[in-house]
Amino acid sequence: MVKSVISPHPITVEVTRGTLVEGRHRCHAVVADARGEVRHLWGDADLEIYPRSAIKPVQTLALIETGAADRWRLTDERIALAAASHAAAPAHIMAVEAWLDDLGLGADDLECGAHMPNDEDAARALIRRGEAPTRLHNNCSGKHTGFLATALHLKEATQGYIGIGHPVQKRLYDALTELGGAALTGTGRGVDGCGIPTYGMPLKALAVAMARLADPRGLGAARGEAARRIVQAMSKHNFMVSGRGRFDTVAMTAGNNVAKRSGAQVFVTKTGAEAVHAAILPGVGGSRGLGVALKVEDGAKRASDCMMANLLDFLGALDDGGRRDLAGFLEAPILNAAGAAVGAVRPAPGWNRVP
Amino acid sequence: MVKSVISPHPITVEVTRGTLVEGRHRCHAVVADARGEVRHLWGDADLEIYPRSAIKPVQTLALIETGAADRWRLTDERIALAAASHAAAPAHIMAVEAWLDDLGLGADDLECGAHMPNDEDAARALIRRGEAPTRLHNNCSGKHTGFLATALHLKEATQGYIGIGHPVQKRLYDALTELGGAALTGTGRGVDGCGIPTYGMPLKALAVAMARLADPRGLGAARGEAARRIVQAMSKHNFMVSGRGRFDTVAMTAGNNVAKRSGAQVFVTKTGAEAVHAAILPGVGGSRGLGVALKVEDGAKRASDCMMANLLDFLGALDDGGRRDLAGFLEAPILNAAGAAVGAVRPAPGWNRVP
Repeated sequence: MVKSVISPHPITVEVTRGTLVEGRHRCHAVVADARGEVRHLWGDADLEIYPRSAIKPVQTLALIETGAADRWRLTDERIALAAASHAAAPAHIMAVEAWLDDLGLGADDLECGAHMPNDEDAARALIRRGEAPTRLHNNCSGKHTGFLATALHLKEATQGYIGIGHPVQKRLYDALTELGGAALTGTGRGVDGCGIPTYGMPLKALAVAMARLADPRGLGAARGEAARRIVQAMSKHNFMVSGRGRFDTVAMTAGNNVAKRSGAQVFVTKTGAEAVHAAILPGVGGSRGLGVALKVEDGAKRASDCMMANLLDFLGALDDGGRRDLAGFLEAPILNAAGAAVGAVRPAPGWNRVP
Repeated sequence: MVKSVISPHPITVEVTRGTLVEGRHRCHAVVADARGEVRHLWGDADLEIYPRSAIKPVQTLALIETGAADRWRLTDERIALAAASHAAAPAHIMAVEAWLDDLGLGADDLECGAHMPNDEDAARALIRRGEAPTRLHNNCSGKHTGFLATALHLKEATQGYIGIGHPVQKRLYDALTELGGAALTGTGRGVDGCGIPTYGMPLKALAVAMARLADPRGLGAARGEAARRIVQAMSKHNFMVSGRGRFDTVAMTAGNNVAKRSGAQVFVTKTGAEAVHAAILPGVGGSRGLGVALKVEDGAKRASDCMMANLLDFLGALDDGGRRDLAGFLEAPILNAAGAAVGAVRPAPGWNRVP
């Protein structure tokens, strides 16, 4: 276990070009354990954030805990899809469509809105065919299908499941409050990109929630089993969680390879919009499990991807091979139009100095 | 003329969602006059930046001053194109191609590299036709054609014109040093997105350079005339400078309409990569001409567009109609996937309080 770093200053993620630091991002980061203790901190642990899609593992708990996953005989692939911000590659779309079909539902039952696929090839294929994206292409369509599967199982209304008063959202709110250990009364309220409510919470509470999924001994048998299943499903089916070349898929693949080489436990990372990023690290660095939560103030994904890669390395989750797999995120090249590397995105030197 | 605001604190550009400020950008901004005096300041006037494409008006001076513009009988539309970061809509591409053709050159003579059009329709059209972007689609292809026109006129080599030792780049360096009034020896050196050298300079020097183009009385007859011609060409042919729906085109169109209604002088705004943004404001607010330079630390365009709109308003360059034309930048809505406005990008209240 590395010594604690507790710094009131956010990490500066530098954007270099030639000899000058041309840009700067400010990244707050908390590493916590399941007892709610802060192990490492850069910046403001109480910074109020919306956790956005970084809490998709938490949003998947009810699917398992209510018995819906068993009732619908869900594969781990579908569990991963419920916790995904997928890129809408054909494999993602087919998987969501097949799942909806098994539920007797269709794309029109999703209340998430439509947007262009994040996968570039998939976006180009749609454009070439002259087609508009459907709700299936929304990166949250797997999560919404999971919501519908739970509601159907419990004989709740499938219409209006994105409303703040619907049991689907209430269960999520309760799980978030319990796992994070912070009351969310009086915090921010907003609407997420996919239409569901999002709740303001301290950055620390997000880290603690992730730590409790990493080390679920205190959660009771049912929730503990659900947490373990979600971590295993997401890491194993990490393509379903994100997509080709995207951070979470690349990072979890790297983690799986580290585990194969060293016997370490696999880990989960999960991005959210506006540069929130969380990680579930069972058994890392000699601990029983840590949770990571970070937020780049300005919402830049290039900086949050970079810092999550660097924090995984800092916490001992990577070996040489893992660092090679994540090289393009640890220090991300800036390319000009001719394809030449003319700069990089990387944390300011010394950010990881331990006292 | 509004009273001076001189604040050591950058402006915070807030990203709201529901009741919470979910994100924050830090924007440094300098307003200067042609004598080199700072009229307004938020943040660090000495912040070293790369001016990137915000100095395209300066990059266009030599085209006129060397006599190349007259020799090639350039229309104002081509002057605007030389100062453009165009979106590669068909009109841009045809104009660059015709200009190259008149010079006896072609796309292969451009040394700027290729990237997908910034205009969404143009990008989709390329994808539908299964074509890759060419160097013509680079947002800097007009500027590079201007470089080539100058080099040809002066019988300089057209190959290698992006090299730091080529006369084209030396003229630019000299103009930048003179106009900004700051020595650029010992500052940063990097390669711009389009392959030319870029030089670190204080943010204040960029504002002063813009002020001298706005109020060119001290520049001598030839440079003064060139400055006036560039400002007129860019504001009149503002579509050539940027593209449909993009900030500079929308802002300069708004400025032209203000001028028509009130007799005020037209103005120029010019974006650069990594959220540098400059403006040339002849005769605004009772002054003889002001220059604006701003830089968002993290490089986010959503914040620099928003702050340039707000600074134009702060400086008296907009009327009610101008504010309506720029409403979507003054406070930019954040939409979710279903198209609902769930937040906004706007400067933190009170940023424009005068002492």
